[in-house]
Amino acid sequence: MSRADSPFLRACRGQPTERVPVWFMRQAGRSLPEYRAARGEGSILDAVRRPELAAELTMQPVRRYGVDAAILFSDIVVPVAAVGFGVDVVPGRGPVVEAPLRSRADLARLRPLEPEEDVPYVIDTVRALVADLGDVPLIGFAGAPFTVASYLVEGGPSRQYTRTKVLMRAEPALWEALLDALADMALAFLRAQVGAGAAAVQLFDSWAGALSPDDYARTVLPASRKVLEGVADLGVPRIHFGVGTGELLGLMAGAGAEVVGVDWRVPLDEARRRLGPGVAVQGNLDPALCLAPWEVLSAEAQRVLERGGGTGHVFNLGHGVLPETDPDALSRLVELVHATPPAGAPRP
Amino acid sequence: MSRADSPFLRACRGQPTERVPVWFMRQAGRSLPEYRAARGEGSILDAVRRPELAAELTMQPVRRYGVDAAILFSDIVVPVAAVGFGVDVVPGRGPVVEAPLRSRADLARLRPLEPEEDVPYVIDTVRALVADLGDVPLIGFAGAPFTVASYLVEGGPSRQYTRTKVLMRAEPALWEALLDALADMALAFLRAQVGAGAAAVQLFDSWAGALSPDDYARTVLPASRKVLEGVADLGVPRIHFGVGTGELLGLMAGAGAEVVGVDWRVPLDEARRRLGPGVAVQGNLDPALCLAPWEVLSAEAQRVLERGGGTGHVFNLGHGVLPETDPDALSRLVELVHATPPAGAPRP
Repeated sequence: MSRADSPFLRACRGQPTERVPVWFMRQAGRSLPEYRAARGEGSILDAVRRPELAAELTMQPVRRYGVDAAILFSDIVVPVAAVGFGVDVVPGRGPVVEAPLRSRADLARLRPLEPEEDVPYVIDTVRALVADLGDVPLIGFAGAPFTVASYLVEGGPSRQYTRTKVLMRAEPALWEALLDALADMALAFLRAQVGAGAAAVQLFDSWAGALSPDDYARTVLPASRKVLEGVADLGVPRIHFGVGTGELLGLMAGAGAEVVGVDWRVPLDEARRRLGPGVAVQGNLDPALCLAPWEVLSAEAQRVLERGGGTGHVFNLGHGVLPETDPDALSRLVELVHATPPAGAPRP
Repeated sequence: MSRADSPFLRACRGQPTERVPVWFMRQAGRSLPEYRAARGEGSILDAVRRPELAAELTMQPVRRYGVDAAILFSDIVVPVAAVGFGVDVVPGRGPVVEAPLRSRADLARLRPLEPEEDVPYVIDTVRALVADLGDVPLIGFAGAPFTVASYLVEGGPSRQYTRTKVLMRAEPALWEALLDALADMALAFLRAQVGAGAAAVQLFDSWAGALSPDDYARTVLPASRKVLEGVADLGVPRIHFGVGTGELLGLMAGAGAEVVGVDWRVPLDEARRRLGPGVAVQGNLDPALCLAPWEVLSAEAQRVLERGGGTGHVFNLGHGVLPETDPDALSRLVELVHATPPAGAPRP
């Protein structure tokens, strides 16, 4: 089997597979004892800047679980941090911005990303990984313009996104310029990762679900589309993901991805209906249930597999692995997914 | 105009009104300088236990804004705190439980609520308010079983509801007994409020949107239905509200409320489609936009009014007033809603 024939890449393209492929968002992370041992304390951004460590952290879940894809150990704020916007990631809290974006003058702090100059360590990590991973595809990723913007504007994690929403509506020209700059950065970042050997990309718009469909369509979708369409010529599958995006799935399908990731709130068969034909789905087991007894977890996984339909389905959680997850539960989950014959008839 | 003919009560019943009625979730709260002055520091539970203060806090937004309904100054954990479960509300954080619910033995700490014995102060507050409010209806409220359970099980506010979801799935009999006990408490609490003169009730299932539709239907809906059906004979409109419930609206319509509250993620015309005929809608302006310039806020309010359809619509925010909201913005919002002729033709 070559990498191009891997179940993951075939499923992303909607082609039949012998088994449903599986990987987990945040599969490289605090739930793994080997991660905690290798990574120690400190900002994730420091770890990302060390290719040997970043590659090791990326490989750990592949070795342990036998998942069908690796995902680059990185963070959605890596590009903005790399151009000197003044962002760090505080353990247990998330991205924190020294001087949040408040006016047009702050846009100057978002100069274009030159991957070879600004994030050479990411390119080195990808190159090292591609050599090590063999037939297992590596997923590169970037934060989508809205989600990254929300951190820059709020100054940190948020529940309400008040400043972001007000800026978006009250200063539409500034907002558009901000999202356009972030789209260009995400695009350059993804192109560099694919250029170094990433076999697929995921655009994380984790918090887009906080928006009304009208706001999303008018003020966010164009920038996300710019990123996704900007990597179309590279020929790798594009995955587009957010949490709580039930109302946005139809719009997200129009942004240009081959695969749309869905959280547990929308059953996958219903998600497919909203996405329309020709789009594969990724998801959508509730990560909280990975902490439930195996009978509960396995029954839920079976249900996800059934509703996923067997073809054009990449099994995943509906959001990232929770830090308190027992890795053994994920091992069993991978075994179960791999042992279950794909449900349903092949899809066109 | 008698109270029964008030725009709010008529809209709840789907009857035509001369203007769309408006009130705001958390209209009594930290956004008001008079609230901060009257309330001081300390737990909300202490304020709830002082009928004169609680009535004053309830009246403040009615006086200031001229809203079409008052909502009792209270908290969703009042009943469980009153029976001695060991809950307090920490300012800036929310409900905190000393000893979270972990096993069946903890159920004994949820003895039935005897309103006259356990929450006489709430009954006194309602009685005092009804005398003062004249033709303005008072909305009583309770927390729905799931949302209250989530605090008891998690021990405080949560983003993932991991323990709650695991308990729900791993110990279904315990979960059912827990929700049944909480349903009985909410029911007794609402009946006491209506008995003292509340003209409508709202059941807050604020966090139900964290659940998949299957989980909601199987493990939450029956308990919420028990509460709502249990007050049906009282003849007051029942409002059922949660955040991020787009996937649950059809199910919530089956729980027995005359009005379903919707957040900003689902346009009201679409919400109506999901709810089916005969259900009024409440909402759904994004509270973040109350901090935007008036041109933005007023345009959004107009859009909410248009999509609300004019009849069977109670104008509200999609969630509570944010503490940093300028009260003058809400005053203008009430004026705008009252000055706008109801859109569309009367609904059956």
